[in-house]
Amino acid sequence: MGKEKCLLLLSGGLDSTTLLAKLINNNYDVFVINIQYGSKHNEQELKAFYNIINYYKISNFRLINIESIIKLFKSSLLINNNNEIPEGHYHQENMKSTIVPFRNGIMLSIVTGFAESHDIKYINIASHSGDHYIYPDCRPDFNKAMQNAIYSGTINNIIVQYPFQNEDKESIVKMGLKLQVPYHLTYTCYKGRSKSCKRCASCVERLEAFQNNNVKDPIRYE
Amino acid sequence: MGKEKCLLLLSGGLDSTTLLAKLINNNYDVFVINIQYGSKHNEQELKAFYNIINYYKISNFRLINIESIIKLFKSSLLINNNNEIPEGHYHQENMKSTIVPFRNGIMLSIVTGFAESHDIKYINIASHSGDHYIYPDCRPDFNKAMQNAIYSGTINNIIVQYPFQNEDKESIVKMGLKLQVPYHLTYTCYKGRSKSCKRCASCVERLEAFQNNNVKDPIRYE
Repeated sequence: MGKEKCLLLLSGGLDSTTLLAKLINNNYDVFVINIQYGSKHNEQELKAFYNIINYYKISNFRLINIESIIKLFKSSLLINNNNEIPEGHYHQENMKSTIVPFRNGIMLSIVTGFAESHDIKYINIASHSGDHYIYPDCRPDFNKAMQNAIYSGTINNIIVQYPFQNEDKESIVKMGLKLQVPYHLTYTCYKGRSKSCKRCASCVERLEAFQNNNVKDPIRYE
Repeated sequence: MGKEKCLLLLSGGLDSTTLLAKLINNNYDVFVINIQYGSKHNEQELKAFYNIINYYKISNFRLINIESIIKLFKSSLLINNNNEIPEGHYHQENMKSTIVPFRNGIMLSIVTGFAESHDIKYINIASHSGDHYIYPDCRPDFNKAMQNAIYSGTINNIIVQYPFQNEDKESIVKMGLKLQVPYHLTYTCYKGRSKSCKRCASCVERLEAFQNNNVKDPIRYE
């Protein structure tokens, strides 16, 4: 019998790369999908994505571009929006401008159609508790309901898995260090420059996660 | 106070056009979205769509093309698939090839992002009980779960409404006749020719719905 197939939403960031390592370690045959939604950090994430799938020798992957859809929305995270990326922690009020409306719902729906067409039974997404405060489509209520919608709305009763739902960035990094995740290849900063900014919420929380694990973050900062 | 805003997924078919009439009749300010997913009947539907929004003088509308995403899937309903559209009733086994995987999930997710960006609280979709047997993402289980996912996954707690969930095609036409829906402008056939084929499941059920209402279907058939 072959390995169990699963699909993973991989951005090229720290969380989804750690989840990739975990799924490979759990002996899954991982089909990787990267969804490009027109974020300001798209170019850097894509570079990271390719480096990571090369590192793990992933042969089944697909890029799906939904920029033309998402550009109809409003978010400071998007290229078509001139608002500055806010700085500080995720729980600050100003971070709300970085919400891409229903992003996880849209990404999960699209990969569900893909999984159903390719007889893949499991979908994985690396949303975690650190995102709960600000992003409604990362919270357990949403996760559970979306899982039910995808299970009941597909012929193969596809199952969405959220293995990091109750983890925070610190425990994800802890897990990843054990799995020897190539964190030097990942990209996290919202600002999309080649060196990370150190100041956006994404950088701040990443740096803290490494500090709390007493490990130096191996990526380059300004 | 102005009218309550709502969003409607309008294909140009019989069901969603009847729902448009009902929403206008219920005094909603309707924002209409047409999603083009690369179906074989796209061109005819789009012609119908424009005729209908002109008829009802709808000024707020948007077309969203997701063909590039859906072409990654498999379905006999899609242009990139050479399988013939099967003929007969919806409950036949061969009709399964017309399933576009998780189509309603994908369409609802996308318009949710749109509604959230434009402060629209209600989303309407005309899925009905006639589709339950074959399309899992038209059934009450899916509807309820997707409603919960969208409610909990949005800042504005957006509500999806399924007013035709317990209606069949016959009762939808009955309602539409009372509302004087311009059925001559709508398009239903899966085969995408200018005259409808009479034989695909969509045509068969439409014709029956009119017959059972003792009214002649005003569109042209081969």
